[in-house]
Amino acid sequence: VFRRKASASSENQIVRFLEERFGGRRASLEMGIGDDAAVFRPPGAEERWVVTTDMLLEGVDFRADWQTPEQLGWKALAENLSDLAAMGVRPRFYTVALAIPSAIGESWIAAFYQGLTSLAKIHGAILIGGDLSRSLHGVQVCIAALGETLRRKILYRAGGKAGDGIYVTGSLGRSAAGLFLLEQGCTEGATLAERLALEAHRRPRPRCREGLWLAQQSLAGGMIDVSDGLSMDLHRLCRASGAGAEICLSRLPRFEASGSWGCDPLELALHGGEDFELLFSIPAGKTARFEASYPRRLEPCTQIGRLTRHPGVYCVDGRGGRRRRVAERGFDHFRS
Amino acid sequence: VFRRKASASSENQIVRFLEERFGGRRASLEMGIGDDAAVFRPPGAEERWVVTTDMLLEGVDFRADWQTPEQLGWKALAENLSDLAAMGVRPRFYTVALAIPSAIGESWIAAFYQGLTSLAKIHGAILIGGDLSRSLHGVQVCIAALGETLRRKILYRAGGKAGDGIYVTGSLGRSAAGLFLLEQGCTEGATLAERLALEAHRRPRPRCREGLWLAQQSLAGGMIDVSDGLSMDLHRLCRASGAGAEICLSRLPRFEASGSWGCDPLELALHGGEDFELLFSIPAGKTARFEASYPRRLEPCTQIGRLTRHPGVYCVDGRGGRRRRVAERGFDHFRS
Repeated sequence: VFRRKASASSENQIVRFLEERFGGRRASLEMGIGDDAAVFRPPGAEERWVVTTDMLLEGVDFRADWQTPEQLGWKALAENLSDLAAMGVRPRFYTVALAIPSAIGESWIAAFYQGLTSLAKIHGAILIGGDLSRSLHGVQVCIAALGETLRRKILYRAGGKAGDGIYVTGSLGRSAAGLFLLEQGCTEGATLAERLALEAHRRPRPRCREGLWLAQQSLAGGMIDVSDGLSMDLHRLCRASGAGAEICLSRLPRFEASGSWGCDPLELALHGGEDFELLFSIPAGKTARFEASYPRRLEPCTQIGRLTRHPGVYCVDGRGGRRRRVAERGFDHFRS
Repeated sequence: VFRRKASASSENQIVRFLEERFGGRRASLEMGIGDDAAVFRPPGAEERWVVTTDMLLEGVDFRADWQTPEQLGWKALAENLSDLAAMGVRPRFYTVALAIPSAIGESWIAAFYQGLTSLAKIHGAILIGGDLSRSLHGVQVCIAALGETLRRKILYRAGGKAGDGIYVTGSLGRSAAGLFLLEQGCTEGATLAERLALEAHRRPRPRCREGLWLAQQSLAGGMIDVSDGLSMDLHRLCRASGAGAEICLSRLPRFEASGSWGCDPLELALHGGEDFELLFSIPAGKTARFEASYPRRLEPCTQIGRLTRHPGVYCVDGRGGRRRRVAERGFDHFRS
């Protein structure tokens, strides 16, 4: 269910094509297609506004029996808030288009919206509209979220420079470890680690506070959220910044416990999707100041490598092993 | 394909429930759930901003073989621009979430975006982002559109008052007449009238210019777009305005030609969906001034009745016949 059919071109290529051919320009538009979200400045407004959208389809992005409707609502909004977090802006408003099969009734709908609004409340986002319709095949959700900068600060993918340290919040591969459990039929979790993995997959925490703090400090270079796996999103950050990267595998904050249920924690940390952590760069001269000032109340972050002049993403194992290329093989809807 | 399964509650009822239970409030939010679009004022901005979203599903809202991908892109955006037109605001930006089965390739995608952007260009809207994914069952499109007021003018559904004249732009029932042809297997159109009906269904023209003009004149009371059929959308306008309505059937600008292929033009004018005309009210003392000043370059409009103190929507046939209640039976995703 979670792997796609073959296709001639990857999602990245198609998005670039769409940007070149159909992307528009306007004075008030600061960033169109191509970053985590689009950025515009309403004439006269003090702050810039950011808009993002994501669609989740049953059978492609989730399975009906793998989470409650509350968890589905939570996760659908989390994906969008994570895009706003990746720009370092404050969530403001969101709309929800929901299509449901006729077998689904009002209590399901109420629970779904309960999940949405409980996450929204944490981050100050308000439901302002939507669309409700019937579907013939499963549940489909599409959310659009609007964010606002604070003191005009914003971070883009393209802000990285060769020499920057690369950091990531939290740990990587935990959501993929939870997905693995679900695929094995384990929906409850017998141990604490299993429950943590399932929770990460079903109820991810978008790093809005961390993103906002990073934008406010004016220390970070480029930023992106890790939604499709580190290998893919780091490639995106590098391409946007005109840089390459070298990461140290021993430094990757992986979810080691998944080894106990048959996963390779390193593999999941590199290529597993939906962790919704933030991946960002800090200029070399500022890393010490950054690390000293990073608040304890926020999700801890770890330096995992640095941006390089040479393009491409490489890794070293940290124990004197050789330098190898990291394939870009996180989640791609359009790759074979 | 275009009629829904039975359900306990109607779309209107569910939306009211969601508004009461999950709708939020914030100083900068002027209108949340409940109108054609939500309205907010970015702090410091001169103008108010409006956001709307609509989802279209293959097999529910359209059939793959009934229009080209260009026409599908056009129509998907037209639905959203019509919501902006109904508030009298200028289209600015839009995002597109698109999910497509693996059999669909790049030329289809390019044609779809061509349709979107060709309509967008007419009304000054710019594609600023989106989401692209695979679907297992047909094409799914979800657009979110942002509009901006001009000189702070905006029109709401709730602006109508008893005594107002009720007007509608263009004609009603033409899109439904085109849908009827498609359902009969007529996809080309042998006569001019058939081609006009098919064109109305496949490539509807959102009344953005008319809506903007109406908002600028400060003559209109309440406004809504006719997307789900006159009977349903007039009921919505009335409920929001705390009024009823009496319409004169002989005045309805119907698409008479559909009678030649077996439709009842009056029936389609009352209950057919997707015309995307504007339905608005003009206070009694201003109707003469309104009619005298309405520009010829805009789609003509017709007075079809008036708002009443007594709730409910009624019709008279205009030839001395008796007053009858108009059932609210336009298009509803959630009604049996």
